[in-house]
Amino acid sequence: MSQAKFDELRTRLAEIADLVKTASILGWDQHVMMPPRGAAIRAEQMATVGRIAHQKFTSAEVGKLIDELRGWGEQQEYDSLEASLIRVAAKDWEKASKVPADLRAEMSRSAALANPVWVEARKNNDFKTFLPVLRKNLDLRKRYIECFEIDDEPYDVVLDDYERGMKTKEVRRIFDYLKEHQAPLVKEVAARGGNQPRAPRFEIAPQKVFELEVAHAFGFTDDAWRLDPTVHPFASGAGIEDIRITTRYFTEHLGGLFGTMHEFGHGLYEHQIDKALERTPLARGVSLGMHESQSRMWENLVGRSMPFWRHFFPRLQELHPDALGDYDVERWYREVNLVEPSLIRVEADEATYNLHIILRFELEQAMLADEFPLEQLPDEWNSRMWDYLGITVPNDTEGVLQDVHWSGGSIGYFPTYALGNLISAQIWERITAELPDMYDGFEHGEFGQLRDWLRENLHRHGRKFTPGEMLERVCGTSEIDPAPYVRYLREKLAAIYGIAEPA
Amino acid sequence: MSQAKFDELRTRLAEIADLVKTASILGWDQHVMMPPRGAAIRAEQMATVGRIAHQKFTSAEVGKLIDELRGWGEQQEYDSLEASLIRVAAKDWEKASKVPADLRAEMSRSAALANPVWVEARKNNDFKTFLPVLRKNLDLRKRYIECFEIDDEPYDVVLDDYERGMKTKEVRRIFDYLKEHQAPLVKEVAARGGNQPRAPRFEIAPQKVFELEVAHAFGFTDDAWRLDPTVHPFASGAGIEDIRITTRYFTEHLGGLFGTMHEFGHGLYEHQIDKALERTPLARGVSLGMHESQSRMWENLVGRSMPFWRHFFPRLQELHPDALGDYDVERWYREVNLVEPSLIRVEADEATYNLHIILRFELEQAMLADEFPLEQLPDEWNSRMWDYLGITVPNDTEGVLQDVHWSGGSIGYFPTYALGNLISAQIWERITAELPDMYDGFEHGEFGQLRDWLRENLHRHGRKFTPGEMLERVCGTSEIDPAPYVRYLREKLAAIYGIAEPA
Repeated sequence: MSQAKFDELRTRLAEIADLVKTASILGWDQHVMMPPRGAAIRAEQMATVGRIAHQKFTSAEVGKLIDELRGWGEQQEYDSLEASLIRVAAKDWEKASKVPADLRAEMSRSAALANPVWVEARKNNDFKTFLPVLRKNLDLRKRYIECFEIDDEPYDVVLDDYERGMKTKEVRRIFDYLKEHQAPLVKEVAARGGNQPRAPRFEIAPQKVFELEVAHAFGFTDDAWRLDPTVHPFASGAGIEDIRITTRYFTEHLGGLFGTMHEFGHGLYEHQIDKALERTPLARGVSLGMHESQSRMWENLVGRSMPFWRHFFPRLQELHPDALGDYDVERWYREVNLVEPSLIRVEADEATYNLHIILRFELEQAMLADEFPLEQLPDEWNSRMWDYLGITVPNDTEGVLQDVHWSGGSIGYFPTYALGNLISAQIWERITAELPDMYDGFEHGEFGQLRDWLRENLHRHGRKFTPGEMLERVCGTSEIDPAPYVRYLREKLAAIYGIAEPA
Repeated sequence: MSQAKFDELRTRLAEIADLVKTASILGWDQHVMMPPRGAAIRAEQMATVGRIAHQKFTSAEVGKLIDELRGWGEQQEYDSLEASLIRVAAKDWEKASKVPADLRAEMSRSAALANPVWVEARKNNDFKTFLPVLRKNLDLRKRYIECFEIDDEPYDVVLDDYERGMKTKEVRRIFDYLKEHQAPLVKEVAARGGNQPRAPRFEIAPQKVFELEVAHAFGFTDDAWRLDPTVHPFASGAGIEDIRITTRYFTEHLGGLFGTMHEFGHGLYEHQIDKALERTPLARGVSLGMHESQSRMWENLVGRSMPFWRHFFPRLQELHPDALGDYDVERWYREVNLVEPSLIRVEADEATYNLHIILRFELEQAMLADEFPLEQLPDEWNSRMWDYLGITVPNDTEGVLQDVHWSGGSIGYFPTYALGNLISAQIWERITAELPDMYDGFEHGEFGQLRDWLRENLHRHGRKFTPGEMLERVCGTSEIDPAPYVRYLREKLAAIYGIAEPA
């Protein structure tokens, strides 16, 4: 009886999962393949698929099935598919069904309308034209928060959308630690005499050759992955065996390569999920923070490491003889680990990135609490850029208007980027302890040990557990701990810049 | 009151149209972009989207709205959006709701399972392994036919799926005319001494350059179209302003170019539909036959015409100096109009193509009527190939197993290809009478006059009318008339091969 009910729930959730992945392919196509005039009808199609998925999930039938199955689910093994699916679906349903369909529709509509306004405002350095749509998004987000009971702080509600179970005060505690321990690193580096000049021009064609060689060494296979150019890189896909990553190219630096490694990390997480979870809501990463830990791991802990470059630098040099002819691997290693406070978050280095996030986290809370008139947002932004990074913001385009998130109504999203950095270092300490010869593999271009470890300990579980439970299984603690990341940074920068070693 | 009901119907149909176009993008992606291991999950996603669209359309609510609106719709202008939408939706609903969901699901499942069996059977020249799945498909198709009242012949039901309103006896009358008047052309050409040898090797890269130049001259624009390579070319898209065409390349001949022109014709039809019809079931071609008339028109009546090549041949020669260095435009023109009976339908020339279709049309009816044991199908195929084309079939791979259609359960589809050829010539007689200087334009690489005529007289109406009504508006007769096509062929072949001129 319960088994039959479970099968029905699973069938309904499979249909919804198909719609969610369909929307994901529509989105991928929109950003990678669609001719520009297809935009208007694509917006309708994506809205329709999204609305049907939401209606089907929040239906009374699904709610009833979940209710009836709750007790039965608790009798199954905690990490079984049955128990996990019921537990996660119950939590999702509870949250999704609290928001009226009208409000949800208004939020999507407002975000869709705000996006082109933001694009124009950013282009014209004109915060004033963005202000009314930002205000509208913010008001809707406040109404959204009001749909839920607040235990502690209103920001908890939006944070939980991206990092289930995480509390604002917990993030604040972590970020305070970073302000105290990470921010000084940047000043110490500056005090040691700054940075080398940048390398010259990199041709695009050899960049594409190189990044594919790296991706294949990492575990990208042509039968289950795609890599395509796009304007704003992202990872996506239609399922565990259909992973799409995207990148973009610059001639001034190899940001495209690091972007590819970053998106590979996201893709690998989705690709190594247990196939038994396909067509369920468990077939994705446990949270955005954990997801970002995987992208940052491949981009930074692997891709900016000396063992990686010991293997790959000769090939890179061969492909870019003009740009890198007079480099050796040590100089190149310093160059890809350059520390330099800068205006733009997505271009920030490992040592300054989190500071960009802290600023946004604080401003988001302040906006939700009406701590200052919204007109004043650029000033608030600029003064924090000075406080945290010692930088003067020359215009709003390179300041408060730089990110897409607020135009899309995404508030509570930014912290997950920094949390991902921190988690990546926590996991890395565990991995390097368990795999003592992993770096030897890197020096020979082999990454299978790391890939397998991640699958076995993290990826295969998908979204069966809460982020805290998952971290506990991987690292032995459910708490996000910023100390390993700061330790890792100080150690690296000590070697490069001669700042003080970790205590 | 009726207006409100109409708005509700329109909203529901818009949602369904979004799902249909979503499925179309999933299909395009599957054939053009998807990494191979994505196949299994993609099949689920496409089945889910298709099932939801079908459920939503055949729902009692939609049926009730259509019923309530029927009288009101008849009071509106016949060609208004309102009247047309209600009329067409009523007809679609009536047909769709007569087929039980279970039967429909079994038909898709059986087709999906039969496809890989067909692929293997074709590869191994092994009809026997294909036989059971063909039988299953055929049995299901018979059960499908039983869902409807038969006025005249059972084949009418399946024919109507692809060519609404068309009757089997009408097709038979047309095809009898072709047997009498088209088949002899091929023999007359053979009697005049056969054909020139084929041209040498064409490199792929210059082919791609050339076909894009042609496509752009025809009306392909980068902001609303895509052209990509694929294994089995087709035209598709997400909407009026997002048209996707595909092609494939050969080094032995320029089949890829003619394929591109063919798919351009399909794409242009969809692209020139009145934008007011977007997100309705009227936003597509009126029938498969009419659609094929557009693809064959651009491929043959334009792309195999002397005025076209007078403009484009010098450029083609420039791009393929080795292959075409010693050609002049007359020799090239004869080469692209080669008449030669051959085994494979999709490679057949203008003079033999329809004969391949007649054979299939007759076999389909015989199979539905159990006129011979299905084991005997290859023999029946081969004996007709001898009768109609004078060709001995060396194996089933190049015979009865060559086409995908029967493995997908598509019976009744083939005739639309030949009907399209005939319609293209009917329309062409009208166009050349109304646009006396159109060929002058072709000689200067200008095709805007033709494009505009097609939009104004045919394309913009989408699926507002029945195929017969549409043909009446375009050509002044609702009947498909084979005489113009045979006239066109005889005239062309008289000039090239010296056979008798049309009477």
